[in-house]
Amino acid sequence: MANRSQYTCTHIVNGEAIDTSETFFEHLNPNTATVLTRVPLASPELVNQAVQAAKAAFAEWANTPIVKRSQIFYRYKRLFEDQFAALAQLLSTEHGKNVNEAKGSLRRGLEVIELACSLPAVYKGETLRNVGGGVDYETHRFPLGVCVGITPFNFPAMIPLWMFPISVMAGNTFILKPSPQTPLTSTRLVELAGEAGLPPGVLNIVHGGKEVVDALLTHPDIQAISFVGSTPVARYIYQQGTNAGKRVQASGGAKNYALVMPDAPIDNTVNALISSVFGSIGERCMATSVVIGTDAAIDRILPSLKNVAQQLTLGRTDGQNIPDIGPVVSKEHQERIEGYIQKGVDEGAELILDGRNPFVADAPNGFFVGPTIFDRVAPDMTIAQEEIFGPVLSIIRVNSLQNAIAQINKSPFGNAVVVYTNSGRSAREIQDKAECGMVGINVGVPAPMSLFPFSGWKQSFFGDLHVQSSEGLDFCTKKKVVMKRWFDDDQLNDIVF
Amino acid sequence: MANRSQYTCTHIVNGEAIDTSETFFEHLNPNTATVLTRVPLASPELVNQAVQAAKAAFAEWANTPIVKRSQIFYRYKRLFEDQFAALAQLLSTEHGKNVNEAKGSLRRGLEVIELACSLPAVYKGETLRNVGGGVDYETHRFPLGVCVGITPFNFPAMIPLWMFPISVMAGNTFILKPSPQTPLTSTRLVELAGEAGLPPGVLNIVHGGKEVVDALLTHPDIQAISFVGSTPVARYIYQQGTNAGKRVQASGGAKNYALVMPDAPIDNTVNALISSVFGSIGERCMATSVVIGTDAAIDRILPSLKNVAQQLTLGRTDGQNIPDIGPVVSKEHQERIEGYIQKGVDEGAELILDGRNPFVADAPNGFFVGPTIFDRVAPDMTIAQEEIFGPVLSIIRVNSLQNAIAQINKSPFGNAVVVYTNSGRSAREIQDKAECGMVGINVGVPAPMSLFPFSGWKQSFFGDLHVQSSEGLDFCTKKKVVMKRWFDDDQLNDIVF
Amino acid sequence: MANRSQYTCTHIVNGEAIDTSETFFEHLNPNTATVLTRVPLASPELVNQAVQAAKAAFAEWANTPIVKRSQIFYRYKRLFEDQFAALAQLLSTEHGKNVNEAKGSLRRGLEVIELACSLPAVYKGETLRNVGGGVDYETHRFPLGVCVGITPFNFPAMIPLWMFPISVMAGNTFILKPSPQTPLTSTRLVELAGEAGLPPGVLNIVHGGKEVVDALLTHPDIQAISFVGSTPVARYIYQQGTNAGKRVQASGGAKNYALVMPDAPIDNTVNALISSVFGSIGERCMATSVVIGTDAAIDRILPSLKNVAQQLTLGRTDGQNIPDIGPVVSKEHQERIEGYIQKGVDEGAELILDGRNPFVADAPNGFFVGPTIFDRVAPDMTIAQEEIFGPVLSIIRVNSLQNAIAQINKSPFGNAVVVYTNSGRSAREIQDKAECGMVGINVGVPAPMSLFPFSGWKQSFFGDLHVQSSEGLDFCTKKKVVMKRWFDDDQLNDIVF
Amino acid sequence: MANRSQYTCTHIVNGEAIDTSETFFEHLNPNTATVLTRVPLASPELVNQAVQAAKAAFAEWANTPIVKRSQIFYRYKRLFEDQFAALAQLLSTEHGKNVNEAKGSLRRGLEVIELACSLPAVYKGETLRNVGGGVDYETHRFPLGVCVGITPFNFPAMIPLWMFPISVMAGNTFILKPSPQTPLTSTRLVELAGEAGLPPGVLNIVHGGKEVVDALLTHPDIQAISFVGSTPVARYIYQQGTNAGKRVQASGGAKNYALVMPDAPIDNTVNALISSVFGSIGERCMATSVVIGTDAAIDRILPSLKNVAQQLTLGRTDGQNIPDIGPVVSKEHQERIEGYIQKGVDEGAELILDGRNPFVADAPNGFFVGPTIFDRVAPDMTIAQEEIFGPVLSIIRVNSLQNAIAQINKSPFGNAVVVYTNSGRSAREIQDKAECGMVGINVGVPAPMSLFPFSGWKQSFFGDLHVQSSEGLDFCTKKKVVMKRWFDDDQLNDIVF
Repeated sequence: MANRSQYTCTHIVNGEAIDTSETFFEHLNPNTATVLTRVPLASPELVNQAVQAAKAAFAEWANTPIVKRSQIFYRYKRLFEDQFAALAQLLSTEHGKNVNEAKGSLRRGLEVIELACSLPAVYKGETLRNVGGGVDYETHRFPLGVCVGITPFNFPAMIPLWMFPISVMAGNTFILKPSPQTPLTSTRLVELAGEAGLPPGVLNIVHGGKEVVDALLTHPDIQAISFVGSTPVARYIYQQGTNAGKRVQASGGAKNYALVMPDAPIDNTVNALISSVFGSIGERCMATSVVIGTDAAIDRILPSLKNVAQQLTLGRTDGQNIPDIGPVVSKEHQERIEGYIQKGVDEGAELILDGRNPFVADAPNGFFVGPTIFDRVAPDMTIAQEEIFGPVLSIIRVNSLQNAIAQINKSPFGNAVVVYTNSGRSAREIQDKAECGMVGINVGVPAPMSLFPFSGWKQSFFGDLHVQSSEGLDFCTKKKVVMKRWFDDDQLNDIVF
Repeated sequence: MANRSQYTCTHIVNGEAIDTSETFFEHLNPNTATVLTRVPLASPELVNQAVQAAKAAFAEWANTPIVKRSQIFYRYKRLFEDQFAALAQLLSTEHGKNVNEAKGSLRRGLEVIELACSLPAVYKGETLRNVGGGVDYETHRFPLGVCVGITPFNFPAMIPLWMFPISVMAGNTFILKPSPQTPLTSTRLVELAGEAGLPPGVLNIVHGGKEVVDALLTHPDIQAISFVGSTPVARYIYQQGTNAGKRVQASGGAKNYALVMPDAPIDNTVNALISSVFGSIGERCMATSVVIGTDAAIDRILPSLKNVAQQLTLGRTDGQNIPDIGPVVSKEHQERIEGYIQKGVDEGAELILDGRNPFVADAPNGFFVGPTIFDRVAPDMTIAQEEIFGPVLSIIRVNSLQNAIAQINKSPFGNAVVVYTNSGRSAREIQDKAECGMVGINVGVPAPMSLFPFSGWKQSFFGDLHVQSSEGLDFCTKKKVVMKRWFDDDQLNDIVF
Repeated sequence: MANRSQYTCTHIVNGEAIDTSETFFEHLNPNTATVLTRVPLASPELVNQAVQAAKAAFAEWANTPIVKRSQIFYRYKRLFEDQFAALAQLLSTEHGKNVNEAKGSLRRGLEVIELACSLPAVYKGETLRNVGGGVDYETHRFPLGVCVGITPFNFPAMIPLWMFPISVMAGNTFILKPSPQTPLTSTRLVELAGEAGLPPGVLNIVHGGKEVVDALLTHPDIQAISFVGSTPVARYIYQQGTNAGKRVQASGGAKNYALVMPDAPIDNTVNALISSVFGSIGERCMATSVVIGTDAAIDRILPSLKNVAQQLTLGRTDGQNIPDIGPVVSKEHQERIEGYIQKGVDEGAELILDGRNPFVADAPNGFFVGPTIFDRVAPDMTIAQEEIFGPVLSIIRVNSLQNAIAQINKSPFGNAVVVYTNSGRSAREIQDKAECGMVGINVGVPAPMSLFPFSGWKQSFFGDLHVQSSEGLDFCTKKKVVMKRWFDDDQLNDIVF
Repeated sequence: MANRSQYTCTHIVNGEAIDTSETFFEHLNPNTATVLTRVPLASPELVNQAVQAAKAAFAEWANTPIVKRSQIFYRYKRLFEDQFAALAQLLSTEHGKNVNEAKGSLRRGLEVIELACSLPAVYKGETLRNVGGGVDYETHRFPLGVCVGITPFNFPAMIPLWMFPISVMAGNTFILKPSPQTPLTSTRLVELAGEAGLPPGVLNIVHGGKEVVDALLTHPDIQAISFVGSTPVARYIYQQGTNAGKRVQASGGAKNYALVMPDAPIDNTVNALISSVFGSIGERCMATSVVIGTDAAIDRILPSLKNVAQQLTLGRTDGQNIPDIGPVVSKEHQERIEGYIQKGVDEGAELILDGRNPFVADAPNGFFVGPTIFDRVAPDMTIAQEEIFGPVLSIIRVNSLQNAIAQINKSPFGNAVVVYTNSGRSAREIQDKAECGMVGINVGVPAPMSLFPFSGWKQSFFGDLHVQSSEGLDFCTKKKVVMKRWFDDDQLNDIVF
């Protein structure tokens, strides 16, 4: 595919790039508001073609010994590393996060590729001999068949990589449906997998919106759906996919609290908060969006926090510069965030840092929102309850650790809670009582590495088994239990001694 | 509850027996067609009361150290063993299977109680220290909250025991909704758990039909549903439960093939088949209902198979006698089975043993169907495709191993396939290629012991995680991932050396 | 054995009690200095007889399905609980620790019995199918054969229970050789196992000293030796046992430090220290024997520590009273401890509490040493370096956390280090850097429950695999790896379709 | 090291190649009997220097996050693959096996490198929270320190790779001491690891004989010894290493039986036997050296077996040709094998194929022994009992399966037993009853891939934990158990809310 521009977006079905379509989505470069790529939208026929390709490739792929399958992922890791800088630049261009943030997210994705390489070490079944009456037991894992990943715009490499490396290494074939807002990096990942030696049909990518999603959700030849996105869509995916009898794991949104204790070290806490709140322009489901603490704790860190936030630089991310903060993904999203900020003001929160309408010298047309901080936010305000997905922080003041935990646990979401403290007791209290699946003790973005599950709880996840770790493997495999005995029978005398 | 008859059926909610209701279901003793017990049917209010009791009991139970929780299950095992004979008699009376079969099923259930005792040994989370930057990882399992089990009539002890011991030991609280057709044994199990020391509200039982099921499926305070029953209902449960955002594991029906190879030893194979086809009056989802083989293989065993089947005794199971075959669970079910037999005749299968209208000396009013065998059944006949759940065997003749496997894999169900052979190669062929989750090599009823999952595939199971084994545990727990670091900060100097 | 006094000591070989011998050891009641029991010492012939009994019992026991073996341990747990009070009284009488301490140690032992019951859940082997060329892999655990436990006087129930339940449940047969100083409880444990249904020969006990140990170490029919005792003997056992080609796990002595940080809460720390230093009269390898800290930290807790230590009561433990501190196990041991105290004085440590020659009203002839505290102990003094195994505490003052850790890690032993602090950072520092296998964060006696290994490092352990947990299981089992394929060969056509 | 010949042999200590020495061993090319390389023999000072280098490198390496350590092994895999052909040629030249056999052994070694890459996925410790009283448990693995591998001549790449990748990935530093008879490939492996980025001192290699071994066995700064070689030396290593307090895993020799059943397919069985008996010139501890069976079974395969053996080609392996059989490693070894053949004749076995003094056209001076077969060997003959380590097969005839198993189990060795059969029953019989750690069912050389332990039993292994798999990891790591609680103490009020 050498003579195609890196900004040409194609489907890849059965190893072939397909860039024709009846309809296209124009994704704008968020830095410039000019068209970056025209995304072909898949027809129902093309979706079905992808499913049939994946189905046709399944038998042989599933029957390839796992240690052979892993060799392809070792090569994939190598290619991925060779292409690292180019992937990062492509990602920062189409998404808007800066290239260092892009690289960080690629590294997390790379860890899942490494986990895929390691899968032979954890794929084993079990035995128990002589359970009674000469019967021996054994189990074996088997792949499911055709699996699907539907992924959001905010991590166009990492989130697809949460899904397909483990699924494909486990012997499944796969169809990726990324967000049309960041299609290029995802497509490049699929392309690279082919270059690493993945047979045609094993990993496919199709672009599209709700129609494509619905076609996948109801297709009888698909066994499992992995999804990451907002909570309403995650719920919909879970309902529709399971309604069609499939396995579904669907990660939704979040509203993550950081509890600052009065004994938290100021500088380290502020640095961690800045990164967690404003990193990736707040467009991540692990971002801290609420800081909670007593007056004593808040007042101790707030001056510094505001000061550092004010100094963050904004700029374009599709070139050589590396600003702190790039544009958000689209004009619509920018306006949505600005709407939340206005809502915060209207509902009476104290806007101590306003990021609206920032001046960005090198990107006057980009979709920028600067760092925004609200103090004295009440728990029932909209900005305290809804996921904004932008660089907006709400500060809630409480009068005790108990009240802080109570407030945190009122959230319908259950991704992450972070505490900043030096006290073992305070840390254990949060670790034990926070009703969420990922806890950071002085760790601003407690998104687990691939060896551990991305373990959303409550409305942040629908399903039984999360991506990554052995849960990811369990999700895309099933077990066969064999019970075996051999008769010691005179009738068989002729074929033994 | 000493002065209550063993045939009095009650709900048990928050530790209290409740036998009042506005409506009742009259369960007839299948041996005599007389009323055995009046089953109170729960109102929506009572269902909600049970949920609230379970919800209220959750916090303290979940917070009880697991090694303390296990002590109750050690006592439960002891009480269960003490009551073993009485439980078996109660079960054979209300269900119709003979007391030896009842005991066999109780033993399988007991194995799950033992697995529950063992849970502390497998409940552990994981750690990885110094993942980078001084960050340590750890995970911990947490229970989900209120869980529900909805169980069928055919194994009123074993199937509930697949569910609640692991769930409750894992820290959940539980509501059991058994079949109204066999409510007594299930109720006794819940009662016994209270006697073993389970706190009120931790394990509850309510009786009812579809209304009660629907109330449970949609109740917002319920986190997870376990179900065993027919495939249409399993699919419904999966759809409705997941639609309400819950975890669901739903086992459905089956149509299990036994492949007889020409080198199978005759006597052992026939004995295993008889037990698998006619045991528990065929009312089990692991029963062999189709035998498949070449003419050579079939003709080799058929005379003996028919001969042994003909000699099986029928009789009542609510007294001291132990016939080979008891009554099926109800008049309706008897008629349903007879309908299938007639259908087989009508569609042209060769009825070589007809079990309809048997004479049963000690139980003239019982719901009996005797051993029934059809030869030369075509794969597209109704009796070859639908689950009959009675003592009816279909024999399908094929001309090669490949065709046998192809025919087996056409089944929409995926519980069990059995092969009878002395050949390692033939056994491995089936083990590898049969598209089902439980395989017997010369084992007639490959229902796994509790250490292994009851691993239905295809339309025999909806969900990700099966009952029993670590899958059962994973189903009813979620993981919290903690990422931890401690700042080395001059600001903290005062509280260290 | 009903009409035998509980103070009659016998061997048990092949299920038979043997109380005759040519030589006996007279064990004195440490409370009264009068003969409690005459311990028969085994001749070489009797040792060999025990080995032959264990060897003869092995094949059938190893071949008994593990789920059947576990039933015996469920019964053993029940009998153990039924006899709990009697066992505790017997233990406190023959050893000298108070009955509450005896009960505590029995509970820890009981946890290992429960782990034994759970062994089926963790005994499994592994599979990997289709590794290439149609080859499938599987592994299975097998027991080793005859195993031996050689145990010290200080925990006559808990330490034998670290060893034989797991070994025997794993399918081995076993010979226990307890300390002649506390033979009665150990013997009762073996007797009870027979009552629980363990077949004759599976678990045997012989009494004796070095000659018996040497006979066991060199016997060619013994596969593995487990030992707990002092470091010189542990090293000897490791050298001699391995020299004879056996597996050996040998736990030795310790010199455990407790680091007190300036932010440690005073009362809780003092209470934990008192229990750790003086509990079980200091006769345990997990006892704290050195407290280390800065002047600020030490001076903060020392007044309270001394004050509480002074108020501990001494008294006899063979009756109804429950003093804080009972007698040490023998006159010789008492004199050895007193020698260390004198040495501390001679070498210049500051004796701030002297426990020598205490007045004990109800036990004037008992072997008592009261709580003893040395302050300002130098690291090179004898009392800072050698294991005293009595109620003697040394306090070492340092000027930084780094120096404290350096001093702790100079110890040749590696059992436990404890830190008292509220700081997560200080705790992590110790957790990470203390060169020992068991760390307590505000836990005075970090002896792990049975699900975790008793993980001595350095001179506190010789071998690869510790007692308890999966390490204990791995120690007494070996794995068989099976690689399997089946030829698809025309020559075999006749026996398949 | 570019300008050094590939046949220059050096030590590598602390990253530096050292080719000077006071003494050298001249290793002859076994194809030509001319000097291939002069092996420098390490002085005691150099051995100590290597230990000190490894010790010095330990702290930083152990503290490098495991996911970072793994990156080096990913690179090592890539370099190894790039050098694959050159390594194979070097190996076949210095050893004498043909280049295809060399490649086969490299592939097995590569699998261990892949396992090393996978170690992060299996390195985890465990947690159990709230065990009681607010106490949480966690464990962590730690490396041991300096580890040593002492390896034999027959697999100069594979056997070192059994050891150091896992040990080094686990955080240990390592000293390899290969056989002076095949030093070049091993040295190249260590060199390559440096090129992959392993820091100096982490992996060292020293050459030498018994003096070097003894220096390593007794050095106080070495924690663990891995060994593969003959049984007498393995026993010596185990005794001496453990005597010095170290962990030891020592694999010894073997005498592997293949049981041929009367239903074994002739061609496949013969092919598998030829490869297993004569492959790698019989110089492997997994080679079949005895075939056992009934007259019927033996007579069925023997003509073909002899016929194929006779046609095997002999030739030199240091050039472009690929003969079936190359030279044995040395003149001494050739004479030793010839001595065994003469002994077989002298003791009355029937020599049906005599491989002595073969004519090898392209290697008239090479150390060749051709395929040799003895029929009607009696179990007590020398050739039936001792490990010959050459292309010599003994055939023992028995009259029943039971007698065959009894004869097999009389062997003092316990590496491998193979059975050739199509019967599931016969296979299970061997699988269950053969007293050895590796069983082949129609698999000629059941040497497990890296995910499974190389599991010698009896005199084929001394120690607890074998190389490869989780056993290999357990051998070179120890666990720290942390018990943690946090006081809720009013004295601490000031630092919390």
